[in-house]
Amino acid sequence: MKLVLDSSSNHAHTVVSIMNGDIAPYVTTLRRVADSGVYLAPESSINLPFDETLVPAVEAVVASKVTSALRTIFVIGIGGSNLGTKAIYDALRPNLTTKRDIVFLDTNNASTIQTATRILAQAATMDEVLFVSISKSGGTTETLANTEIMMEAAFLKWGGAVRDRLVVITDEGSAFAQAAAERKVTVLSMPTTVGGRYSVLSAVGLFPLCALGVDIHELLRGAQDMRQVCLNPDANLNYATISASLLYQAYQDNLVVHDTFVFQSELESLGKWYRQLLGESIGKKLSGSQEGTSVGITPTVSVGSTDLHSVGQLYLGGHKRTFTTFVYSDVDTPVYTVPKERMFPLLAPMITGRTTTDIMSAILRGTTTAYRNEHLPFVELVMDGITPYELGAFLQCKMMEVMYLGYLFGVNTFDQPAVELYKIETKRLLDGK
Amino acid sequence: MKLVLDSSSNHAHTVVSIMNGDIAPYVTTLRRVADSGVYLAPESSINLPFDETLVPAVEAVVASKVTSALRTIFVIGIGGSNLGTKAIYDALRPNLTTKRDIVFLDTNNASTIQTATRILAQAATMDEVLFVSISKSGGTTETLANTEIMMEAAFLKWGGAVRDRLVVITDEGSAFAQAAAERKVTVLSMPTTVGGRYSVLSAVGLFPLCALGVDIHELLRGAQDMRQVCLNPDANLNYATISASLLYQAYQDNLVVHDTFVFQSELESLGKWYRQLLGESIGKKLSGSQEGTSVGITPTVSVGSTDLHSVGQLYLGGHKRTFTTFVYSDVDTPVYTVPKERMFPLLAPMITGRTTTDIMSAILRGTTTAYRNEHLPFVELVMDGITPYELGAFLQCKMMEVMYLGYLFGVNTFDQPAVELYKIETKRLLDGK
Repeated sequence: MKLVLDSSSNHAHTVVSIMNGDIAPYVTTLRRVADSGVYLAPESSINLPFDETLVPAVEAVVASKVTSALRTIFVIGIGGSNLGTKAIYDALRPNLTTKRDIVFLDTNNASTIQTATRILAQAATMDEVLFVSISKSGGTTETLANTEIMMEAAFLKWGGAVRDRLVVITDEGSAFAQAAAERKVTVLSMPTTVGGRYSVLSAVGLFPLCALGVDIHELLRGAQDMRQVCLNPDANLNYATISASLLYQAYQDNLVVHDTFVFQSELESLGKWYRQLLGESIGKKLSGSQEGTSVGITPTVSVGSTDLHSVGQLYLGGHKRTFTTFVYSDVDTPVYTVPKERMFPLLAPMITGRTTTDIMSAILRGTTTAYRNEHLPFVELVMDGITPYELGAFLQCKMMEVMYLGYLFGVNTFDQPAVELYKIETKRLLDGK
Repeated sequence: MKLVLDSSSNHAHTVVSIMNGDIAPYVTTLRRVADSGVYLAPESSINLPFDETLVPAVEAVVASKVTSALRTIFVIGIGGSNLGTKAIYDALRPNLTTKRDIVFLDTNNASTIQTATRILAQAATMDEVLFVSISKSGGTTETLANTEIMMEAAFLKWGGAVRDRLVVITDEGSAFAQAAAERKVTVLSMPTTVGGRYSVLSAVGLFPLCALGVDIHELLRGAQDMRQVCLNPDANLNYATISASLLYQAYQDNLVVHDTFVFQSELESLGKWYRQLLGESIGKKLSGSQEGTSVGITPTVSVGSTDLHSVGQLYLGGHKRTFTTFVYSDVDTPVYTVPKERMFPLLAPMITGRTTTDIMSAILRGTTTAYRNEHLPFVELVMDGITPYELGAFLQCKMMEVMYLGYLFGVNTFDQPAVELYKIETKRLLDGK
């Protein structure tokens, strides 16, 4: 993956130079965390790709649970427990040749549960299904409800032996880990210091993806290589500090929305994964500040060229409040060609004989040119194919970008205290108090 | 569908009273357009649900093209040409019993075309497939590219007779209509005055949905009834003017993001349809104003409870810039129950024996309470089931809300001049100039 700055803009380099001094101490912090290799600091998710015990633990459970009979993996988790897995799944799915599939259960949506139970009802043997229940805290309402509903349906069909088809992923030593162990349910644990939105490269993401057939070694190799880039003390060579500096400066300039504008439709969920990462990490009341002072970047996801026909007018002609990161692969497979003998040759004649790659590339370049002309700032993250390696690099880059960004804003990048505000009310209602 | 205002907030009623006088002349305008019953004014999409020639025309083509053999409808269109159809399709799909399905082709995405051509390759007879190519102008690059690619694959399989399986939907008298007629391809036309993002209740949405098996009479009946509500000269009883007034006032208060927060996952695409409607209609340079003055509300879509675990922290704890419309059905089917005999009874004990409806309702109420406590303004649109009738009402309400909103902002709600900025560049690149 490469980061490409808008060459016509001196702005970018200026910003990075300004920020270099500000960000330098935190680069040192992250380098120390990396050198330690352990899970003590809140930043220690950056050590996951180098953890030599992680992949063997994941692969051992896959070896014991997955046979050629496996067809459906039910991933039961919400927020940080499924967004990363879904991002990789959606990105790679079109080119995976496996007969297996993942069904995601996040919220307690009746239609989604209906779909899942129908698939379960059609399974001939229990080896065809695998349930993965993921809750960092072990107390996530929706995840436990979906787990209990799905496991009851499975018990009714196959009896108690089906608990062997469940894998629980949770914090080391959590109540969920304990309860699962008591019932002889397989547990994979995650380090308590790794927050949900930083956990995609732990067992949380690796186990279901490995069970599906994704090359998790390549995913981690991409993340390893990108960690080196994003620990570079020269902020002008460090993708994560460059991107964080640009976002921070944009916010000062009242560009309070960050649009992840992907140009392959299958990358939309990658944008949604980043939406949580950015939204939840930076959307904070400022500590020690006066009452009510808060920051937060509104994360949006757009899909090109689809959304040029939806919100293109707003971006190019409306009030300017958006900084954009274009994300795409410049290797597009397969390639389709508009035939030379067309049915409607007089309509849009310039596409005759052109490939879909040519057309999409022209639309992307047309868009970046229009953005430049309209003084809408942007960067580009360009993947060399939509592969596990490139996706791993993207995930690692973005997690470190957000850490640097949180440091610049002076917020705690790793907590989410405000979600308690609705959870307390919800619990009160369910308790009938 | 009901509009529910936050009862604890006097704000809402105050705003509507203030706006009533401002909005009154435009209520009169819309009433005149409705009385005319014709397609002359830019607002005339509000006459579509009452058009007595429209449904017979759509049903006649369905009768001639759809047999029990039909399995896949390829809807080829982008922006206003497919977002409304996809919104209704996604909302109703879980409870449709038909064996038919729709495959959407919008941008020229290689993976999506690959999926579509694989489905085409598997079809045994051409009666199993139907192609619907939709372009208001007739010149949409991506739509023409996808149409030519798909039709070539169909020609190679079945020969020239397959053109009988194509239906073109475009402006009356457009070059596309003419070219299709010359090739003896069936054409359904839409009124030229009806803009793409207001066209869901024209043949653009009605034809593919009717071919799928959706009750379009009910869809239109819901829109008819809601049009009456949204033409009410008493702005305090008129859902569209209330909603527009609140959004306008929110914008003055620097709440520049409008989040459509749906609480059934299958309504996400309904939010994306509205995203275009709001973004493209209001995101404008102000006419007659000084250089660079522009307005625009950033539309976002959230899915509850999923996104409470993603951006809930930002909404409740971050910088406040969002006005929220919660959208949900308070009739949820089917209903699932967390068993009384649970696998993990000590985890989230308050859900034991509770239904998914109970849980989701508690989360929704927990959320609105937290929003109220945090002074985050919101309204609720509550559907009585996710049905064609209720969806028709929602669509009509929102289209009229945006018309009123555009009037308050003083923008042209019906054009999209800025999209030319990237289209010109794209065309130049494809022409090789």
